[in-house]
Amino acid sequence: MDTFFNPSSVAIIGATEKPSSLPGIILKNLLDMGFNGKMYPVNPKYHDVFGLKCFPSILDVPDEIALTVIAIPAPFVLDVLKQQAQKRIQYSIIISAGFREMGTEGVEMEEKINQVAIENNIRVLGPNCLGVLDNYTNFTTSFLPWERVSKPKKGSLSILSQSGAFAIALLDLAAQEGLGIAKMINYGNRIDIGETALLPYLTDDVNTKVIAIYMESVDHGRRFIEVANACSKKKPIVALKVGKGAAGIAAAKSHTGAIAGKYEIYKAAFLKSGIIEANGLEEFIDGVKALSMQNPPIGNRILIVTNGGGFGVMVTDYCTENGLQIPHPSPQLKEKLKNKFSKFYVVNNPIDLTGSACDEDYRIALSTCMIESDEYDAAIIIPLMSPQGMTEKVVDLVDETMKLSGKPAVICTVGGSFTMKIKQLFEDRMFPVYPSPERSAKAMSLLLKRKILQGGTVHPIL
Amino acid sequence: MDTFFNPSSVAIIGATEKPSSLPGIILKNLLDMGFNGKMYPVNPKYHDVFGLKCFPSILDVPDEIALTVIAIPAPFVLDVLKQQAQKRIQYSIIISAGFREMGTEGVEMEEKINQVAIENNIRVLGPNCLGVLDNYTNFTTSFLPWERVSKPKKGSLSILSQSGAFAIALLDLAAQEGLGIAKMINYGNRIDIGETALLPYLTDDVNTKVIAIYMESVDHGRRFIEVANACSKKKPIVALKVGKGAAGIAAAKSHTGAIAGKYEIYKAAFLKSGIIEANGLEEFIDGVKALSMQNPPIGNRILIVTNGGGFGVMVTDYCTENGLQIPHPSPQLKEKLKNKFSKFYVVNNPIDLTGSACDEDYRIALSTCMIESDEYDAAIIIPLMSPQGMTEKVVDLVDETMKLSGKPAVICTVGGSFTMKIKQLFEDRMFPVYPSPERSAKAMSLLLKRKILQGGTVHPIL
Repeated sequence: MDTFFNPSSVAIIGATEKPSSLPGIILKNLLDMGFNGKMYPVNPKYHDVFGLKCFPSILDVPDEIALTVIAIPAPFVLDVLKQQAQKRIQYSIIISAGFREMGTEGVEMEEKINQVAIENNIRVLGPNCLGVLDNYTNFTTSFLPWERVSKPKKGSLSILSQSGAFAIALLDLAAQEGLGIAKMINYGNRIDIGETALLPYLTDDVNTKVIAIYMESVDHGRRFIEVANACSKKKPIVALKVGKGAAGIAAAKSHTGAIAGKYEIYKAAFLKSGIIEANGLEEFIDGVKALSMQNPPIGNRILIVTNGGGFGVMVTDYCTENGLQIPHPSPQLKEKLKNKFSKFYVVNNPIDLTGSACDEDYRIALSTCMIESDEYDAAIIIPLMSPQGMTEKVVDLVDETMKLSGKPAVICTVGGSFTMKIKQLFEDRMFPVYPSPERSAKAMSLLLKRKILQGGTVHPIL
Repeated sequence: MDTFFNPSSVAIIGATEKPSSLPGIILKNLLDMGFNGKMYPVNPKYHDVFGLKCFPSILDVPDEIALTVIAIPAPFVLDVLKQQAQKRIQYSIIISAGFREMGTEGVEMEEKINQVAIENNIRVLGPNCLGVLDNYTNFTTSFLPWERVSKPKKGSLSILSQSGAFAIALLDLAAQEGLGIAKMINYGNRIDIGETALLPYLTDDVNTKVIAIYMESVDHGRRFIEVANACSKKKPIVALKVGKGAAGIAAAKSHTGAIAGKYEIYKAAFLKSGIIEANGLEEFIDGVKALSMQNPPIGNRILIVTNGGGFGVMVTDYCTENGLQIPHPSPQLKEKLKNKFSKFYVVNNPIDLTGSACDEDYRIALSTCMIESDEYDAAIIIPLMSPQGMTEKVVDLVDETMKLSGKPAVICTVGGSFTMKIKQLFEDRMFPVYPSPERSAKAMSLLLKRKILQGGTVHPIL
């Protein structure tokens, strides 16, 4: 499977320097990323492409080729695959669209390709896909120009996606959210490699810590539950299932030819295999971000610290809705806090530091409640940045205090450009930041869900 | 009531040039906004403040004063109010915190203030609030520096908020979302002026087209339903009720001293008075944005046009969840579309223009389905901007086509900086843009809800 992510040599079929050519953009993206393997453009019309020697056909390449990347019109794919078989190239990423998703004629073409692949032991990713991006080997088959799609930094999240548009959007969002990516794999019509083959691979991939799956359908139901179950014991998996209702299932069929099947069956399968299901794109990203950045809490007793009372109330509401508890501090702890704070501050849970709060107040609240006391398992911290007492120092104070406590935290903050700067600083320190009370509470509940799925003891017993 | 938003003259009690002084920042903000009324700083320590003559007390101001703005520590407020009574000043915005929200002692101070106000016919906004911002008269009592809080542009949304932090966050978000603001009113502990007095005022305010209310509690239950009912017949009202569960209700009490009461009663009241209730901060902003920018659709038949199949499937799912219909095009309409499009495009609902889509394809899809046909009432348009065929021209094409159709549309698009530029262009043309399938579907459903609450005929009958 490694060949798909780090091929020793790769042939790019149809590569040109034309800005509108898919194989051309793929080659350019590979060069831009600084991929180190050997690259062979294949195109009878050129002698060289982007400074690389170009070959009329793969059969003319004198060296061994580990992988072909095929992004030419669908009717020409079969011939390339036959040549590849002759040269005994065992791996292929077929980017081209125009197969199963196009109806009867496309299904026939796809089946012919599949037959040639099986007969010749060629493992295929695709067709109708973007292929892969590996942030550690710098290998990619993406045909989208980097001006349009932000390249996220290196990190620990790997993405499996049936949908190409979705995979790309997720890369873009990851870059925005300061979320580092290990691998992205988009397999489209999935004639061979799918979730069931990729999950065990990612289970053992050292760079992958969290796995995000976008699925319209799954390749092999029973086997999927087995591999997902084995994987989720080691790494959290967050899934977004789309094509839920009748209209959505029909739309999924038009999209990747996927038979989405009954949603209830998926729900049960996720539960059985320890997968965290997200409802919606934002919950998906939010959950993945929380799991990539913080550890699950050992219990559900949440402390809320804010300088905006209304936000404290809202986070309380959404914590309750998500099964989290917001216990009041014990009389002893309350007394301790009262002695440290201005009498205007509301010493309770939420702790409301009011508009008069300064950075240091956050440190005091967190160190008193999360380090000196054992009454809380995790914190939702809401530093609103509009009052003048708040500066970027709050980030380091929260970071130091929470690290000392050994407990997880998520941040909720809302606002314009100054707030966005603070968000960036928090996320550089691996604190996930959310732009609304409801999303921060939900993210915390997904962290806790991971703990429950892992079978750890949760205090108090849920 | 106009005096609170456009006073002919205003006294700022305690104004100084110190950067940390609340009355000082208020005066500075007023000057920065370009307020045209007369301003009288009042402070025995200075002869002038920010170039304005300063008076030892309001009794020393030789001219008439329409409004006082009081942002000095709570224990000193009563004396100022008594002086104000002597000078027969009939309006006061009390910014100062430290009253009912602080327990018994605060309650007593607040009651004394209330008594003096009632005895002397002084109408009071606050205490424990930010007061007002009026984008048309340039009057504000906000004490937050403009470097920290973006000032949104002029527009048609007015905000009523019990919570100051929330009001400020909403201003900041409005600026981010390209949403224009008419008035913001934050009344905190609300000893006099509250929702019930403000709603009728906003009902008749020419600059206000949409009203957003953040509430922990309401001032007068029965009367509120009456005025809200009268208001919602003319203008959409979107409400965010916080303090829902037991923990949230307790948190609300600590915050503004509000007795939040049973959530079920609020739900029933909203329904009865034609208020659209939002669940969460994002739904609140999303709904308000949709209602500020687009008209409600006359029915629930939604067309989805996308160049990312997976996004089409997801929007379909969430439309179904929200009671919207995604009907397939009739055979005639399908034929018409097929003749205009590449055979790779999926001509259905969603229409999937695939990664090969260009701007013009959006115009063709929308003009064929929304102008030439009567099969759809509104559109959710999903232009993903990563493929090279997509440029900023898509914005004008969508704008022109939808305007000709006379039907509403919302936009869903996801991505980095190029996408953000497109979002801005759409919002300049009054198309609300949402960053996820679930939020675009929800926003469309809130638009439809407005139509249903207005009692208009909805086709097909819901």
